[in-house]
Amino acid sequence: MELKVQILGSSSAIPLSGRNPTAQFVTIASRHFLVDCGEGTQIQLRRNRIGFSRIEHILISHLHGDHFYGLVPLLSTLHLLDRQKEVHIYGPPELEKGIYDLLALSHAKLRYPLVFHPLNMKEPDLVYEDKGIKVHSFPLKHSLPCCGFFFQEKPKPRKFIKEALAKYSIPNAEIRQIKQGADWEDENGNIVPNHELTTDAPASLSYAFCTDTKPIKQLRKLLPDAPDLLYHEATFSEDLKDRAKQTKHSTAKQAAEIAQLVEAKHLIIGHFSVRYDEFDELLQEAKAVFPKTHIAVEKTTFKLQSSEKLLIELGS
Amino acid sequence: MELKVQILGSSSAIPLSGRNPTAQFVTIASRHFLVDCGEGTQIQLRRNRIGFSRIEHILISHLHGDHFYGLVPLLSTLHLLDRQKEVHIYGPPELEKGIYDLLALSHAKLRYPLVFHPLNMKEPDLVYEDKGIKVHSFPLKHSLPCCGFFFQEKPKPRKFIKEALAKYSIPNAEIRQIKQGADWEDENGNIVPNHELTTDAPASLSYAFCTDTKPIKQLRKLLPDAPDLLYHEATFSEDLKDRAKQTKHSTAKQAAEIAQLVEAKHLIIGHFSVRYDEFDELLQEAKAVFPKTHIAVEKTTFKLQSSEKLLIELGS
Repeated sequence: MELKVQILGSSSAIPLSGRNPTAQFVTIASRHFLVDCGEGTQIQLRRNRIGFSRIEHILISHLHGDHFYGLVPLLSTLHLLDRQKEVHIYGPPELEKGIYDLLALSHAKLRYPLVFHPLNMKEPDLVYEDKGIKVHSFPLKHSLPCCGFFFQEKPKPRKFIKEALAKYSIPNAEIRQIKQGADWEDENGNIVPNHELTTDAPASLSYAFCTDTKPIKQLRKLLPDAPDLLYHEATFSEDLKDRAKQTKHSTAKQAAEIAQLVEAKHLIIGHFSVRYDEFDELLQEAKAVFPKTHIAVEKTTFKLQSSEKLLIELGS
Repeated sequence: MELKVQILGSSSAIPLSGRNPTAQFVTIASRHFLVDCGEGTQIQLRRNRIGFSRIEHILISHLHGDHFYGLVPLLSTLHLLDRQKEVHIYGPPELEKGIYDLLALSHAKLRYPLVFHPLNMKEPDLVYEDKGIKVHSFPLKHSLPCCGFFFQEKPKPRKFIKEALAKYSIPNAEIRQIKQGADWEDENGNIVPNHELTTDAPASLSYAFCTDTKPIKQLRKLLPDAPDLLYHEATFSEDLKDRAKQTKHSTAKQAAEIAQLVEAKHLIIGHFSVRYDEFDELLQEAKAVFPKTHIAVEKTTFKLQSSEKLLIELGS
């Protein structure tokens, strides 16, 4: 299994040519989540060759325009493309009426079902669960109610060593329990310990998405676990700490400190102010605190195959 | 003086990479009008190096999303850029509430004045006038109320021949009347006819914008004059005439026929369906009827310096 984060946009509020507002396409255990949907996200999906049929769940962190102005245009296009399958939207409660108001203004009646899931903007909450994964929301601290999201693979069973089947004459029906960790008692009463029958389960990977927010020192308590991969906003560099505080954003250094505090394995920083033409200063500032920091450049894909192994593919 | 039409987007409803929804930047007698504002128009303005301070008047033809989903994002960015000067918006009456609803949802209170001018969707109407130009709206025929726009320079005074001043001892105070067409009677009672004192006034140029609409055979009656330049939608080619009729759009051939009927000097066609990868078929179809037809390719600027002289600059 693989956890994949595709950066569709990582600029802050003012879009520039080649720098789009926040949107990410997250794939975890083969489930897909579009996280935030700034203006132009549908074009960014096309540029990243992400088929619209893979849009199933859309999470909106908060209602600043640069995080959701592309939502209704995308929903309209899905309608024009004759979408039939339902779309699930998770967002601040007021968003639901806003979507229908704007659709009504533009004379669009969607031909597919839209299922709206209001987020709890005050407490951590389970927003999605199936047999393989869980997604929690948790409150961030911004100038308006804002949620982060925590994507988590569920613990997986241990891997059964096929050769043990014949060696110890284990019936097929027993394998499930052994994969859960049980030892095996053969017909002579000999106990074969589990570690001779199985190898460790593949890692259950996790990803936390945090934008827009001031640094939250208690963030670890809001997360169900330490994230393998953390995306944290870093709108400013440390010399603009006051500006960050005033606008309830974070500096690159603060983002790195948060990565340490929550015991993340890898950090991606993004949501850079338009004042930065290049991001090396922000990257170095964060790396001084948290060496495994990376930049959320558009068209970059981050692939996590185990806690330790992060692959970075730069798009063309 | 010059009439200039910059194509920011000319695709129909479904945006594709490199093909943006409708938006044009029209400059006439040094006044600027943004005409329609599909998703991503603010990025297109930047790509075309059109400074946001030149955004003064925004005309919205109708409320299909591909013609206005970029409006509130643009208004928000103007706010973030500390805009002070007012912005005038001309659109279907329901748009005003829609703008404020979406701004409220995104917690944005504009710091500059927004002046909304509801369009008359049923009758031709004067929507803007100053000493140099007039802009009329007129009803088109689409699946929902839709307006076209007619931009027109006012008649200009004739040009005074400077040499006549000394030759006929004309006092400065008389020049204004002579430029309006008056003859001159010198102190001996001799009449100097106006054509010896002046040359023809520079042409008063005009531009008609027509999208989305089925062909309107009576269109000439809705326009105050024959347009020098006509933009007419041509969503389909003639072999999809039935589809055009059903969706209340036009074919390239029909657009050309309308250009003939309204006695336009030049025609630009656009708003092409996503089914067309290239537009030569549409261009040839229109040219067979109306030879002076051009394609509204993005980043193209059409400059009209006289009725006859159309310059086309292709953007890079």
